[in-house]
Amino acid sequence: MATTGQRGDKGGGRVMFGVAGVILAASFLFMRTPVHETPAPAPTEAVIDYDPCCAYPCENQGICLSEANRNYTCDCTGTGYYGSNCEIPTWSTMIKTKLKPDPEWLHTFLTSNSWLWAILNRIPFIHKRLMTYVYLSRGDMVDSPPTYESDHSYITLNAYFNESYYARTLPPVPEHCPTPMGVKGPKEYPDVDELIKKVFMRREFIPEPHDTNVLFQYYAQHFTHQFFRTDYKKGPQLTKGTGGVDVSNIYGLTEQDRRALRSGVDGKLRTQKINGEDFPPYLKDVPGISMDYPPHIPIPENGKFALGHPFFALLPGLFAYATIWVREHNRVCDELVKLHPSWDDERIYHTARLIIVGEVIKITIEDYVQHLSQYKLKLTFEPELTHGTRFQYHNRIHAEFNHLYHWHPLIPDSLNVSGTDYAIMDMAYSTAPVFKHGLDEFIHAMVNSRAGALTNRNHAQVLYPVLKKVLENGRELRFQGVNAYRRRFGMVPFTSFEDMTGETELAAILEELYGDIDAVEYYVGLLAERPGPSITPLTMVNIGGPWSVKGLLANPICSPRYWKPSTFGGEEGFNIIKTASLEKLFCLNMKGSCEGISFKVPQGTP
Amino acid sequence: MATTGQRGDKGGGRVMFGVAGVILAASFLFMRTPVHETPAPAPTEAVIDYDPCCAYPCENQGICLSEANRNYTCDCTGTGYYGSNCEIPTWSTMIKTKLKPDPEWLHTFLTSNSWLWAILNRIPFIHKRLMTYVYLSRGDMVDSPPTYESDHSYITLNAYFNESYYARTLPPVPEHCPTPMGVKGPKEYPDVDELIKKVFMRREFIPEPHDTNVLFQYYAQHFTHQFFRTDYKKGPQLTKGTGGVDVSNIYGLTEQDRRALRSGVDGKLRTQKINGEDFPPYLKDVPGISMDYPPHIPIPENGKFALGHPFFALLPGLFAYATIWVREHNRVCDELVKLHPSWDDERIYHTARLIIVGEVIKITIEDYVQHLSQYKLKLTFEPELTHGTRFQYHNRIHAEFNHLYHWHPLIPDSLNVSGTDYAIMDMAYSTAPVFKHGLDEFIHAMVNSRAGALTNRNHAQVLYPVLKKVLENGRELRFQGVNAYRRRFGMVPFTSFEDMTGETELAAILEELYGDIDAVEYYVGLLAERPGPSITPLTMVNIGGPWSVKGLLANPICSPRYWKPSTFGGEEGFNIIKTASLEKLFCLNMKGSCEGISFKVPQGTP
Repeated sequence: MATTGQRGDKGGGRVMFGVAGVILAASFLFMRTPVHETPAPAPTEAVIDYDPCCAYPCENQGICLSEANRNYTCDCTGTGYYGSNCEIPTWSTMIKTKLKPDPEWLHTFLTSNSWLWAILNRIPFIHKRLMTYVYLSRGDMVDSPPTYESDHSYITLNAYFNESYYARTLPPVPEHCPTPMGVKGPKEYPDVDELIKKVFMRREFIPEPHDTNVLFQYYAQHFTHQFFRTDYKKGPQLTKGTGGVDVSNIYGLTEQDRRALRSGVDGKLRTQKINGEDFPPYLKDVPGISMDYPPHIPIPENGKFALGHPFFALLPGLFAYATIWVREHNRVCDELVKLHPSWDDERIYHTARLIIVGEVIKITIEDYVQHLSQYKLKLTFEPELTHGTRFQYHNRIHAEFNHLYHWHPLIPDSLNVSGTDYAIMDMAYSTAPVFKHGLDEFIHAMVNSRAGALTNRNHAQVLYPVLKKVLENGRELRFQGVNAYRRRFGMVPFTSFEDMTGETELAAILEELYGDIDAVEYYVGLLAERPGPSITPLTMVNIGGPWSVKGLLANPICSPRYWKPSTFGGEEGFNIIKTASLEKLFCLNMKGSCEGISFKVPQGTP
Repeated sequence: MATTGQRGDKGGGRVMFGVAGVILAASFLFMRTPVHETPAPAPTEAVIDYDPCCAYPCENQGICLSEANRNYTCDCTGTGYYGSNCEIPTWSTMIKTKLKPDPEWLHTFLTSNSWLWAILNRIPFIHKRLMTYVYLSRGDMVDSPPTYESDHSYITLNAYFNESYYARTLPPVPEHCPTPMGVKGPKEYPDVDELIKKVFMRREFIPEPHDTNVLFQYYAQHFTHQFFRTDYKKGPQLTKGTGGVDVSNIYGLTEQDRRALRSGVDGKLRTQKINGEDFPPYLKDVPGISMDYPPHIPIPENGKFALGHPFFALLPGLFAYATIWVREHNRVCDELVKLHPSWDDERIYHTARLIIVGEVIKITIEDYVQHLSQYKLKLTFEPELTHGTRFQYHNRIHAEFNHLYHWHPLIPDSLNVSGTDYAIMDMAYSTAPVFKHGLDEFIHAMVNSRAGALTNRNHAQVLYPVLKKVLENGRELRFQGVNAYRRRFGMVPFTSFEDMTGETELAAILEELYGDIDAVEYYVGLLAERPGPSITPLTMVNIGGPWSVKGLLANPICSPRYWKPSTFGGEEGFNIIKTASLEKLFCLNMKGSCEGISFKVPQGTP
């Protein structure tokens, strides 16, 4: 790197950029910024009285380093670009860029052309190549090992060694910058209450347009809470979780909790019979387990259960999933005991837990993500496709993934179970709907009820405080704007508010609030985007996909030393994973009929 | 997998092996076992009244699964072998085995032929290919993600998700097996005191035959204690460490300790002037830091220091290294402040810490491991060689690595500093030798003093309790025998006690103690082996090498997103790493002459 203002580094891709250049760049940027209540400063010498890196001058993921005299350099190593601001592609990058399909086109291609996919899905050689591409290309987009955490806007060893942190895909905006987004947009964030009212609150229920049901909504919540475990007492940048699909939502996060939830016989989890069916034990019967029951709400002792996740006492849908998974674990234990009569409780338990992780990943990819993406490419769980490649079998949860996954618009205002309407708050901390109508009836109610569309203006009124906390946390974590994330994940940034929303009314509201399209907050932009062919808008698919695929395939059981029959108690155990499906999970663990179990409401549902 | 005794799995590599086979195998094994005080049981039906997997019937790293009726299967997935016991190589394995050089031959080749290596080391294309091979072949030998921990003899999710565990390369011998080694050897371990007296205690000091000095000995101890941090209060299977080269030995393990050791100005660590030189602060001046000073030994307040590792108060050699690294950190901070005058204390500190990690890895590979291995191949730190390969940038410390690294034979009985002889116990908990003679004099004393040979019968008498604890912990952790580890790391197992020791006297003693060569304990075998061309015997090089290389190269700074100038404050910071050496480390941080700094005593030293 050069040490004076004008000397360039001819050999490499890291080049110095002087004061004059910054002024020029800044003035150009500001020329394009519409003037609003909080106008950007005029392009005079005073303008650059801030760290030049606040303007994010380095393109294509180049790293900005501020130097003496308000100079900066861009480190273009590994970006495939060079030049002062990593703006000039190398020849090989130019060719790659030409060959690479546009993400929006690719997404449309993947979600349409059913006839073509019906053929491709049936040709194993081609299908395996496509799945390998999906795994590796998504994996490549997630920095592993992670580079950033939320307390520093630059690389530190803490990002890797302090696993209490959620990782960060993009570092926080430095605190000393002129605006919350660096130099773009207003000096202060828009008023959060105004934002919520104008952009997020449900006027009338918008149903999910792909027939998604409430069973899907609760799957999302049940599945993701094993790794979204923000340590709120210490701060939104910290997690209590382990960084992956550890099935701690079923078994408990600590060894102490896991011990408490075990029966001690044949590897099984503790259950109790209620109305002749197996359910999780009452909280009073499991010393040492602590659940998030609020002290001020009177809940009878036989309404309180001991579950793997303290939060799962919150809603009957989570309790239903918890029950089904406990039954499935115990069912798998029965199979293993038959195969290995000499194995002790400990070995049956651990082997069953390994099988359950496999089932969770299989169902998540092949049922859940398949529906979520609406891809016509059949998604399959084939970890052997990553063996021997550059794929990294280690995962960390990213703070931005946690925020992206706040999918409360999916929640309808009420759920009808066997003719009784339960409003959201009727169900809080209550398992009554499950026991009044029976677990089977409750499950069918989830199947038959439409979830809400994952879009703007579709948050139920009662979820106002939850949403407000999300937005406030995003600000506390100083997330970069949604356009920065689009660039980071290889998408073209939105060029205007209309380009983002696909209409004019919401676009005008957002333009008034933010002034500059590059200043739109991350979570706001994700939900303000026009609907696309998937359950979520396109940016959310293209950003969330990599974190999701990486998290699922980086599980230790997918690595070469784990992914073999003996890990799962032999060929039979391995086959339980390989044949798992959402339908089977429910059919094997419901008392009565499991007809129609899927993530879609039955055809003809109003 | 088959479910009856005789049915084979034709398609795959997992085959059933019946009762008759076990008896046959067991009788064959026992035939070869010399009869001693505790003879192995005779090969009758009664013999196999134990889990057949205790006999480790699966070869070539196949995984044994016990089934009903004392049957077992071997899972040969990924081993390159098939057959009942994974004993038949596939064609591709057969070819690979033929092409693969014998480890002993390879080691001799690498440690001799100086003239050839002088040429190869100078041809960048060839040298890079060789280093890439070293990195990847060593990395491949370490399971990453880890598969085992010390509380289970089979794969569990805990091995990965519970990072309080040291990982295990081979699982513990199951507790229900007939002997501590499975079925081989005596029913009880040999008496530990007898073992120590006969095999380990120093009769007279054996100097290290490659001129290794005490500076090397203390480097080993200072470097490895950043990741060997056994949580003795909870058990030898647990660690407080983070799993890698985190420089916590310099900066402290917890954020609280790291904060306490910082000056808060220009990123620097706290120091004080003593006799005009910078030293770590007194313990009394750093609230919150706790050091391992024993309460029963009176130590003056100005003899107690606050260091990054509580154990480093133990010996003046560790204190000397601690001082040099603190000075180096502060020196790097001075450089960074010049380059980035606008950066705050926090950013200078974190960037300097990243540079120090790089220096530590560079010096460890290019000075320390180079000397340790005695390779004539010039070892280089070039992390970019692993980029885009299957190399996994995540590390866990293995319990066996910790045990292997108990290198107390290196410690001479005394150290002569400027004419004064300090016995080992004279130096315990004392920094007096450093301050009486001056740090420079003490460093030169370490350079000029011979270390002991890393072999049997060379443990200093005062280290008896330390050694006893190592052996007892190895038994508590139920380590498999040294031959099992030789197999695991691709070496031919020792065929006899003479084959192991290269002589007859020690061989006879060990044969009397263990009866069966396969029953020789891990640590015992490592030190009982005949000396070779490296500082350690051959097995220790071939087993320790993979853990060491993997640990060094799996550091996050070696990964593609970290390994670039901006991570280290720019090209200048990157160059500090790229030009680091042991000599430079001392020369830049000693007051007087640094002549002759190296890991060898000067030529002509008696």
